[in-house]
Amino acid sequence: MKLVRGFPVAEYQNRLARAQKMMAQAGLDALLLTTEAELRYFTGFLTRFWESPTRPWFLVVPASGKPVAVIPAIGAEVMGRTWIDDIRTWQSPDPIDDGVSLLADTLVELAGAGGTVGTPDRDSLFLRMPLADWARVQAAAPGLKVAGDSEIIRRLRNIKSPAEIEKIANACKIGSRAFARVPEIARVGVPLEEVYRKFQMLCLDEGADWVPYLAGGAATGGLDDIISPATDRPLADGDVLMLDTGVIWDGYFCDFDRNWAIGHATDEVRTNYAKTIDASNAAFEIAKPGNTIADLFHAMDKITTGGAGGSDAGRYGHGLGMQLTEWPSIIPSEHMPLEAGMVLTLEPGVVTPSGRTIVHEENIAITDGDPYYLSEIASADILVLS
Amino acid sequence: MKLVRGFPVAEYQNRLARAQKMMAQAGLDALLLTTEAELRYFTGFLTRFWESPTRPWFLVVPASGKPVAVIPAIGAEVMGRTWIDDIRTWQSPDPIDDGVSLLADTLVELAGAGGTVGTPDRDSLFLRMPLADWARVQAAAPGLKVAGDSEIIRRLRNIKSPAEIEKIANACKIGSRAFARVPEIARVGVPLEEVYRKFQMLCLDEGADWVPYLAGGAATGGLDDIISPATDRPLADGDVLMLDTGVIWDGYFCDFDRNWAIGHATDEVRTNYAKTIDASNAAFEIAKPGNTIADLFHAMDKITTGGAGGSDAGRYGHGLGMQLTEWPSIIPSEHMPLEAGMVLTLEPGVVTPSGRTIVHEENIAITDGDPYYLSEIASADILVLS
Repeated sequence: MKLVRGFPVAEYQNRLARAQKMMAQAGLDALLLTTEAELRYFTGFLTRFWESPTRPWFLVVPASGKPVAVIPAIGAEVMGRTWIDDIRTWQSPDPIDDGVSLLADTLVELAGAGGTVGTPDRDSLFLRMPLADWARVQAAAPGLKVAGDSEIIRRLRNIKSPAEIEKIANACKIGSRAFARVPEIARVGVPLEEVYRKFQMLCLDEGADWVPYLAGGAATGGLDDIISPATDRPLADGDVLMLDTGVIWDGYFCDFDRNWAIGHATDEVRTNYAKTIDASNAAFEIAKPGNTIADLFHAMDKITTGGAGGSDAGRYGHGLGMQLTEWPSIIPSEHMPLEAGMVLTLEPGVVTPSGRTIVHEENIAITDGDPYYLSEIASADILVLS
Repeated sequence: MKLVRGFPVAEYQNRLARAQKMMAQAGLDALLLTTEAELRYFTGFLTRFWESPTRPWFLVVPASGKPVAVIPAIGAEVMGRTWIDDIRTWQSPDPIDDGVSLLADTLVELAGAGGTVGTPDRDSLFLRMPLADWARVQAAAPGLKVAGDSEIIRRLRNIKSPAEIEKIANACKIGSRAFARVPEIARVGVPLEEVYRKFQMLCLDEGADWVPYLAGGAATGGLDDIISPATDRPLADGDVLMLDTGVIWDGYFCDFDRNWAIGHATDEVRTNYAKTIDASNAAFEIAKPGNTIADLFHAMDKITTGGAGGSDAGRYGHGLGMQLTEWPSIIPSEHMPLEAGMVLTLEPGVVTPSGRTIVHEENIAITDGDPYYLSEIASADILVLS
């Protein structure tokens, strides 16, 4: 079955209705959104043009009625294909007034001159406009009150719709097929940077729209770190190779990794790898309503560290969706209850006595009953590439 | 000759010395930097991990002495391989204190309790930390004065070193080789999304580390817009196909496009395409010290619009380097003088009577004398793929 790109308008109507209900509860007259994921969530505006930091883009969600886009003219055509009707543009970049006065006017119109505008200000959410311009917007609308977003963005995006989960599932399928083909490209003597390049080609060949994320490494018995770009060091007998990828399909990510032993696997590597599999299995078993995010952490940590409380990575997984990493973080202080519609990565790691790391990651969806895997689960024993 | 990755330490020492001289002139006791390009510029810290929005990363540049990194523990290993010595970490994500108190202490230590900290606040530069956390940092260091960065970041990065230009040149060579192979993948009947996927594979095959940007389109006689992702519409006889890509090599971008006529080219398409070539040639001819950015704009605009002042795209090119788009924008109000070490894109566009666009883009380097092309220049006549 061919998956359809985009969403029916009902998806956006539903997101907007949920947002406006939360806005009413929080006493917000408008929401100001400035980042790629926030704009796309309410409009469907999908472009890789955000790679350019030059122009600011704004969306204002009023207390009732449809969102209003305040954007550079170069984006009017693509925004015009979404369900948004009210699209206000200026010729950007404009060093004198890069959308500042148009945004201030729009905020006053939609929130009222003495209204309260919420904008995300915590939980990994940033204001994507220069601070000096934000000060000028506020100076141009002196009666306007500014507040946080009462975690509305996080609360909305934490729970995915079935249509969103389909897209994440497809990204995971693409990633799974690419991982299955790693034996075609990795063996003793191949430089890691060649493995990285060819793996990205496999992801594209298997249907990825693009490959925003690839990290990993290769070293004897485990990795030194898990966020490095590739070097030209050739794979060597005894290495553990790890590849961790986030591919995009129709604007939604997968994020999981796979490990291989190059040449042979020592007993120590086999044991450490098996621990990470046991850990993600243990979390999967209890990943259902009634338990919390912290419960997932402890189920994994018991196996990986004997309950010592994690490692430098700081967490054992996270939410996943329109971005590579979303809320919640799987940490001991996060007591958020599990709910149907959450999509999570389970990402336990084991640190070896010599200080090296083996990390394993799967992607799962939470339902009202048992969870299910979006990634094709890794083999119980580490695969050896000879 | 194989290009070497990374930079000698002298490159970073030189950047730091230039920054500290500007800081002294501006009366800044420290610079606070929070974004990928800013941290990498002063440290060499290169990782795709920034794709995750979860954790904040900070670099503090003092008035004298080396920069101090205040970063999540997960990055300590990679930062430890750079020339930075003072690396302060916390276990992130931490919803209670995600680096806030460590950053506040570091700022007070390095700037002095009553010192002035500059942080970029204009010119497409954002604060990559939640606004509520920024307020908490300032509350934790009440004597500290906060200011903009006096355009230090922009002024530094506007002028590239020879070693930086080598990396951009290599990215351009990779892009040029990939564009030369488009006849392998594009012909009547191939869906645009397949062209996009395969073109990214060609970029990787030709040596790109990754492919952060690809946009373009295909439509009869020109494009509807230039920032769309691909659709499944098959290429048709009479289409103009445009691909605009930014590939990375060792952390540096190319950014240029190429056009092809599918099946055949009408006289109108040939004429419009030739105009864009004439326009970039005209700008190239005068791209040398003594002229300004605005001069480049007018040289192109005279040919593309007869001097009407540009189009919805808002500019005819921009700076290029660690990011896909940098300063300056080629617009009529930008009177910045051209200087040796600038790397620019020339990106003139022609809007057809039916409202469609043909855009052409080259990458050039400014020297004390004549400029030179980094991209392999496009053919004078539009190429036809049959």
